[in-house]
Order: sequence, then C-alpha cells, then structure tokens
Amino acid sequence: MAPAEPHAIPFRAKGDIPTFAEEREGWKGYIEWEKYPEKKKQVEEIMKRYDFPDPPEFQLVPLPDTNPILTGERWKQYHYATGLGHLVDTSWKYVLKEKSADMIHVLQFPYNGEPPRDRLVSTEITPNPDFFVRNHGGIPEIDPAAYTLDISGLVNNPKRLTLADLQNEELFPRQTNVVSLQCSGTRRIEQIHEYPGDGDELINAPWGEGAIGTARWTGVSLKKVIKYCGGLKDGAMHLEFFGADTYFKKGKVYNYVVSVPWRKVKVNEVLLAWEMNGEPLPKIHGFPLRAVCFGYIGARSVKWLYEIRAITDPTEAPVQRKEYLYYTPQVGKQNAKYSNGFSIQDMPVSSAIMSPLNMQHVIHDGKIELKGWAYSGGGHWPIRVEVSGDGGSIWYEVPWENLSTKYYYAWRLWHMELPVDAEGWLEICVRCWDNALNTQPTFVRSAWNWDLHVTSSAHRLKIYSINRSRPATAARLKLLEEKGIDIVPITKPLEFDLETDEEYEAAMNQQRGREPEE
Amino acid sequence: MAPAEPHAIPFRAKGDIPTFAEEREGWKGYIEWEKYPEKKKQVEEIMKRYDFPDPPEFQLVPLPDTNPILTGERWKQYHYATGLGHLVDTSWKYVLKEKSADMIHVLQFPYNGEPPRDRLVSTEITPNPDFFVRNHGGIPEIDPAAYTLDISGLVNNPKRLTLADLQNEELFPRQTNVVSLQCSGTRRIEQIHEYPGDGDELINAPWGEGAIGTARWTGVSLKKVIKYCGGLKDGAMHLEFFGADTYFKKGKVYNYVVSVPWRKVKVNEVLLAWEMNGEPLPKIHGFPLRAVCFGYIGARSVKWLYEIRAITDPTEAPVQRKEYLYYTPQVGKQNAKYSNGFSIQDMPVSSAIMSPLNMQHVIHDGKIELKGWAYSGGGHWPIRVEVSGDGGSIWYEVPWENLSTKYYYAWRLWHMELPVDAEGWLEICVRCWDNALNTQPTFVRSAWNWDLHVTSSAHRLKIYSINRSRPATAARLKLLEEKGIDIVPITKPLEFDLETDEEYEAAMNQQRGREPEE
Repeated sequence: MAPAEPHAIPFRAKGDIPTFAEEREGWKGYIEWEKYPEKKKQVEEIMKRYDFPDPPEFQLVPLPDTNPILTGERWKQYHYATGLGHLVDTSWKYVLKEKSADMIHVLQFPYNGEPPRDRLVSTEITPNPDFFVRNHGGIPEIDPAAYTLDISGLVNNPKRLTLADLQNEELFPRQTNVVSLQCSGTRRIEQIHEYPGDGDELINAPWGEGAIGTARWTGVSLKKVIKYCGGLKDGAMHLEFFGADTYFKKGKVYNYVVSVPWRKVKVNEVLLAWEMNGEPLPKIHGFPLRAVCFGYIGARSVKWLYEIRAITDPTEAPVQRKEYLYYTPQVGKQNAKYSNGFSIQDMPVSSAIMSPLNMQHVIHDGKIELKGWAYSGGGHWPIRVEVSGDGGSIWYEVPWENLSTKYYYAWRLWHMELPVDAEGWLEICVRCWDNALNTQPTFVRSAWNWDLHVTSSAHRLKIYSINRSRPATAARLKLLEEKGIDIVPITKPLEFDLETDEEYEAAMNQQRGREPEE
Repeated sequence: MAPAEPHAIPFRAKGDIPTFAEEREGWKGYIEWEKYPEKKKQVEEIMKRYDFPDPPEFQLVPLPDTNPILTGERWKQYHYATGLGHLVDTSWKYVLKEKSADMIHVLQFPYNGEPPRDRLVSTEITPNPDFFVRNHGGIPEIDPAAYTLDISGLVNNPKRLTLADLQNEELFPRQTNVVSLQCSGTRRIEQIHEYPGDGDELINAPWGEGAIGTARWTGVSLKKVIKYCGGLKDGAMHLEFFGADTYFKKGKVYNYVVSVPWRKVKVNEVLLAWEMNGEPLPKIHGFPLRAVCFGYIGARSVKWLYEIRAITDPTEAPVQRKEYLYYTPQVGKQNAKYSNGFSIQDMPVSSAIMSPLNMQHVIHDGKIELKGWAYSGGGHWPIRVEVSGDGGSIWYEVPWENLSTKYYYAWRLWHMELPVDAEGWLEICVRCWDNALNTQPTFVRSAWNWDLHVTSSAHRLKIYSINRSRPATAARLKLLEEKGIDIVPITKPLEFDLETDEEYEAAMNQQRGREPEE
C-alpha cells in the first residue's frame, strides 16, 4: 500500500467554534472534562448541531488500498466542531516523528497503526518506533516538570505526586518487566472478512496481526503507590485511571477513563511506567506516564495518566461499560446491549503466522519456513506452538529451541520449517497452548462476535505452494526462467502452449484415450 | 451494479490491418479459417507484431463494481488487429437487442452474460431474453436462405443440407426437448473468492449462479441426419462440430470447433435446433442452427453450426483439447498440461440458492424462504434437494411438492421455508442428490481446480438472520422504526445508547456484578 493523501471531507462550522481552556500550565491538549459537567453538556449541545459524516463502509465493500487505510474524517470533525482541531495536526506530527516510516496506518486519526508483519517478529523486544499504537483521541503534550499524578477516592491519604516523586527510589522501588501489550482488535480483519460486524472505524478499526508488541517497561508498581497513600479504605475494590486525552462517544465528550480491579494491582501486575525499552516513553505512547496492565487488554493501560481514583465498582465510564465487550455470536445490531456482553480484561491464548503472507505463492523444496508470535494473557505463557499445513488436521509441534524466551507476561516468537509436499492452495495454520492448557478456537466462526474483538481462533493463511523438488514443477520453473516469465501473479495466464501436440498424444495413448474403448 | 462505460484501452495498429474475405454470400462475420492454413499463418504473424494488453487482474483484487464487469479489451484488440473489429460492435448490438436490459454483463466481448438471480428461478422455462450467453467470439449474421450445413468426413454419403431440408418433416422427424444448458463456469466466483486460479477473463470469466438456463428446443436429432447420410464409416467414433464464429487462442486463430462421441448422438441426445421456446433461435444464441447436447457442458452445443465431420478421435481443436479441462487441486501454473486434466463432457449434480442473496440480512419470524435451482447432467435428474441453515450439519429435505417438473435433461426449481431460530451470521447451504445417488462435494475447497470449472460443491450463502419472534429483537426493531433508522447496512453503527445506565445496573445486579464476589 502506497502512502496516499487522505480524502478530506470539508468541514463547515455551524455557529461558533468554542475555545475550551487547557486545564493546566505545561499540559498542551489536555482538556479536563470529567470534573466539569457543564462543559460536557456544552459539547453535547454543540455536537447536536452537526450532521457529521457517516463512518465509511469498510466491511461489506473491499478495504481501501491506501495508507492510511481509513482517515477518521468524522472524528476529525468532532474535534473541529469543538475547537480541538489542532489535536488532529499535533497527533499526526508525532506519528511522523516517533513511528517507523512504513507503519500501516490503520486509522489516521485518532491514530491507530501497526508495523509490517515480517519485521514485527524479527526481534523479541519490539523497537519503540515499530510498536503498534491504538489511540482513542489526540496526543496531549505534557511538560514532565509540570506533570503530576493524583491518587484520589477511597484511599486513606490522597496525594498528588510529581514525576520526581515517582522516580525517587527512596520512596518507591523501581520495577522493570518485559510485557506484551495487545489490542483486542488484533487480527480483526479476519472477522471482517468472514462476517462483518459493528462497523465503526474507530471502535472497530480493521487491524491485522500487528496490534501486539513487547517492551521492557520501567516504573513503579501501582501497589506501592497505593501503600504510600496509606492503602485503600474499606469497600474500595477497583482503581479508576484517567487519561489526559479527549474521547468522544455518541455525541458526548469524556476523558479516557477505565478501571482495573484491586486484585490485579495487589499482585504487582500494574506498573506506572515512564520508560519503554530504556528510553522515556514516546509522546505517542503516553509520555510522561502510563499504566501498563500485564496480561490485560491494552485498553486498560491508560496513557497520559493524570489521576487514579479508588472506587467500589468498575467505572461507569463508557470505554469500560460500553466498549470492549465480548458478545455471543447471536448478539448483534438487533439485540446488543451493554449488559449482555462480558467485559474483556484478561487476554486469551492466541498466535499468528507473520511470514509468509496470506495469498502469497511460496516456491520451496519440500519445507516452508514459517515465523510468528504466540501469546497468552492473564499471567499465562505459551508453552507449546503447533502448525499445520492442511488446515488443522495434522499438527506439527514447533521445537522448543525455536521458541524465544519464556516470560510470565510476554509473547514468544517462533519459527518452523514445516514439511510440505503438496502443491496448490494450502491452508497453513497455527495454534498455541498455554501453561493452563488453554488453546485457541479452530475457526474464525468459532469465536465471531459483533464488536469483532479478540480474534483468537487458530490463525490461517492461504498460500500457493510450488514444490520445486517435483520434477514436473522444476521443469516448468526452468522453462519460465528461460522465457523470462515470472510465475507471479499466479493468476496471470501463460501465453505459451503447455504441451506440444506430440507430447499430448503420447500421454493420451498411454492413458488409452479420453474414453473407454468398450 | 450500474451500467458503466467500458474503459477502452487505445488500439494502435502496427502495420497494415488485413481484410479477410467473408467465406460466403449471406454469411456476414463468418471467416473460414479451418480450411485455409495460409490464412491462419497470416494471422499468427500479425498477432506476433503486437504487445496486446494483459488481461486485467480480477482475482487477487476485488472484482470491478461495474456492468460490464469485464470488458475484454485484449480480445477486442485481437479483432482490431486482424481486421475483424466490426464484430465487436455487431455483437454488442445484439446484446442490446436480444437480451434483457438488466443482464449482468460478465464480459462485454466476447459476450458473456447472466440474468438477475431472483428472476432466473421465477420460471421453469427461461425466457429467451434472460437465457445466459457464453460466446467465444463475435456473432455471425447468417441469412437463413443462404444457410447450409455440411455433413462430412467418415460418413458414407457426405451431404450439404439446407435449413429447408432439415425442416422438411418428410426427411426428418422433428424433435422437441426441454433441456438445460449450463456453462462449466457457473458459480465460478465462489472458487475465485476462495482460491484464485488461471486468470483469463475470457476463458475463466467470473460467473455467478446464473450461467444455466432451460429452454424447449426444437430441431432434428443428429442421429437421423447421420442416418440420412448413409451412416458412419468404420472407425468413426466422434462428430466434430464447426461454428462460424472466430476464436483466438495463444496468438492463433480458429473457428469454434469441438467434438462429441457418436455414443452420445446414437441415443438422440444431440439435437440440431432452430427453435428456442417456440421462436427462431436468437442471433446471439446461434441463429439459424445450433447443436444442443443434452446433459453436457454448454461448450459442446456449438452455435452458428455450419459443418459436422465424422472422425475417429476427439478433435484436436483447442477448445476440446486445451480447454474445459478439470484438474486435480495440486495442478496449477507450476505443472498444468493438457494431458493431466480430464475433459469435461457430462455435467455433475449441482444446485444453487438464488434467494436470499449472499451477505443479505433477513428479517423473519422463525422461517426463511429459500429459492433456487438443482440440476444433474448426463441424463440424470434431481431427485432430492436438501437445505441447511447451519452450514451443512442438519439438512432439511425440500418437500417434493416444492420441486418443479422432472425432466431427463433439465433442472428443477425448488423453494422451501427453512426453520431458522438462530440470529446473526448463518451459513445457509443447499445440496442435490440425483437419481444415481450422486451428491455434491461439501466445500468449494473439495472441488477447487486450476481452471475454476464446475463449481459443484454445496452452494453456501452467508446471511444475517434477525428473528423478529424473539422479544428483544422485536423491541429493537420497533425502537429503530420509531427513530426512523433502517437496520441496514447492518455494519452501520447505532448512534443511540443501547441501554440506559439504570437498565445496565439492574441487569448487572442480577448477575451479581462483572466479577466474582469471593
């Protein structure tokens, strides 16, 4: 996909464009909404004035062959209408500055992007520029000297902490973990391709297999911070995270807010991180501070974190209550509610083949090299990876030597020489077993859900196998080479005769003709 | 698909454009090639001068959303280069004159077209304007008074017969049969969609389920004509049919030539027909005379038939020897020959669902109306049709009252109220059993072949089921109606809240929260 100019839909203001003051000195692009119901109301009224463009249809028709794939015109216009248009430009600036030039821009704004498939599995630790990004709003630019984190709600001693406080090793022991983060949208294109679902370009963007990445994160365990604040009050069971990004949903505005249970925090599985692979967090990844929730859906690892509030129940905020829900296959537009889906927290066992690519032709001598990743959330780890060259009938175990390091909270990369005799279209697939003996559903259909989350079925590719160890194939390849004809695209017809009349007649004589003799 | 102007690729002559004389007075557009090797050679030399446009890629990329779907620029240019460009215009003129205005033009030239799905199964006998057309070249315009048919080769008394001779009931008894003709490309889009193959726009055009039709044909049995010519000489085992259309293949020119075995003719299963549903053959369907080979692939039912030659072996002509071959799935570009595919003659048992349409949403009250066709070639007839709403696990028999008339050589239409409780994406499928207990392969993959012929696997549709007899669904549909929101496209997100906070909290209290209490 060649980079292309997004097709901008003209924005026409209806009435005044408001100016919402930034909340704090040194925090550019941070508008506080949650503390000001009247401002939220004001935005709601503004939003009602507009007839924003429909999200583009990208499921029942082919996906655009452009990069960005989708541009997010509707979300851009939400920002223009509410005086936040500058965030659109700021965010794209950081994409160009902080991310690899060849990212697949799944959605331009809010930015959602993933790296090229082959490169993602070339290193156990994902370089920062290649790490997928799934933002829900614009990127706030926060001066670290002006940064603070509020610990509030049902804690015994609420506090405001500076970055220096958090980094003070006399107050808090430093913690470093190798952790994979994964968007619940990973591999969504497989669900879209088979059975389209809720077609929201932002909520349900068409991700490939690259919405996962692994980094070495450094920060402090949230548990220690809560302890430093005197611990929780009775009844506090959840911790609500507030991100400085602005988030729109169904005509209303919010900050990005989710929550995680205290049980998760208590086992030191929630890190407040300022370092990603030994470097300060990139702006696009939440600088100066973000949550990293091990083994959870990425949506809980809030970026630009400015407040943590102890509460009794999971947050009512829409990202938690109304999104990232997992429905049974009979739920859809005709009956979906928020209470009939369950909330995605721990991520299940999953895997993907990242090389070769789907629909690729592979010329080989009886073995095809496969590469990919395998992951399990919730503190489980991939203990076995299996691949199949026949759609899942015969499975081969990937030798343990071909799996990368075991971590409690990270993926394992794998590679395998799969014995392949057959030619033509083959269905190559992979499945992983984790240490709790969980494995993956067999088909996309087995795990289809209306919001198209968590495509965790065995990952399948179609590849066109050309086995050069077969004499007839070797002869054809040699002939093509002599004639200077490339075998791809395989669909392109050959212009020469496939057999001479003499060869044909000799073969037919051996078969004793096309039809019975008596 | 809206009619669209074909995207013409400019043609630039290289050297002189020849003028090939028409063979006979009163036969416009008929150039005889088979009797003049020197003319064939001349065309071969001309063709070598040109670098004709590649056939468009239409398999690895989405099919054009236009009508004509494909335009055949390369074939048009073959005709321009050889002085036959007028055939391009003549042929399109007859499409507009003789075919329904809403035909799906699969390929503009040579013309390949099929009718809209629902209408095709509304009548047991297909009206002539709706009958699919699969032409291999331009349309010759033959004056019936000037028309003759030569019976030649290994017959005891070779003869030239006029149309009047053939229609003379004192010479030949008249024969009328209800016969389905089917292109081996029927339902090819399913193979293309799953596993692309040889991508030739003419040879392997992207047909839907409508490349089949049923007519009442009137003419004489070829057996009687051969008898009238004194019968066959010893060793004659096949009859070669010559069509007046011009056919190009791999840089060479031919008339359209195939053959059928004498065994087939001997049982009165080959008709020389001048009437289609009580009317003279339309020009586009072979006026004034064509072959109709019962139960065979349509390719043998030669149009504009001008000669029948008795021979010892199947014809060497490319349509017979090099096309309409059925390969095993491991044969493809890397190893396909002509002798390692078998020649398609008798058509197998097959069927299709023509309503609802693939990817359609269906609102129902527990039953979905299905309609379609079922067919078996080789003199077999559909004896049972079964449908499934779950991808082929549970099958329901279509009641015999819901099947149209049994014929030895024609399809049966069927309809069925399929009980459907489930909602969401369902895989509806159909299979037919014929009187010899043959049934269809289960999946497209089960019968994939490089040239993408005879897609005879159980026909599958994805439909999105919305069961109004369920209270939650009825309530949602009512709400949508009140709000004036159409439920389609189903992928379009709903802008209103799916549940109030109060409803959500009440439901969650009943579930005792999102997480365990202890």
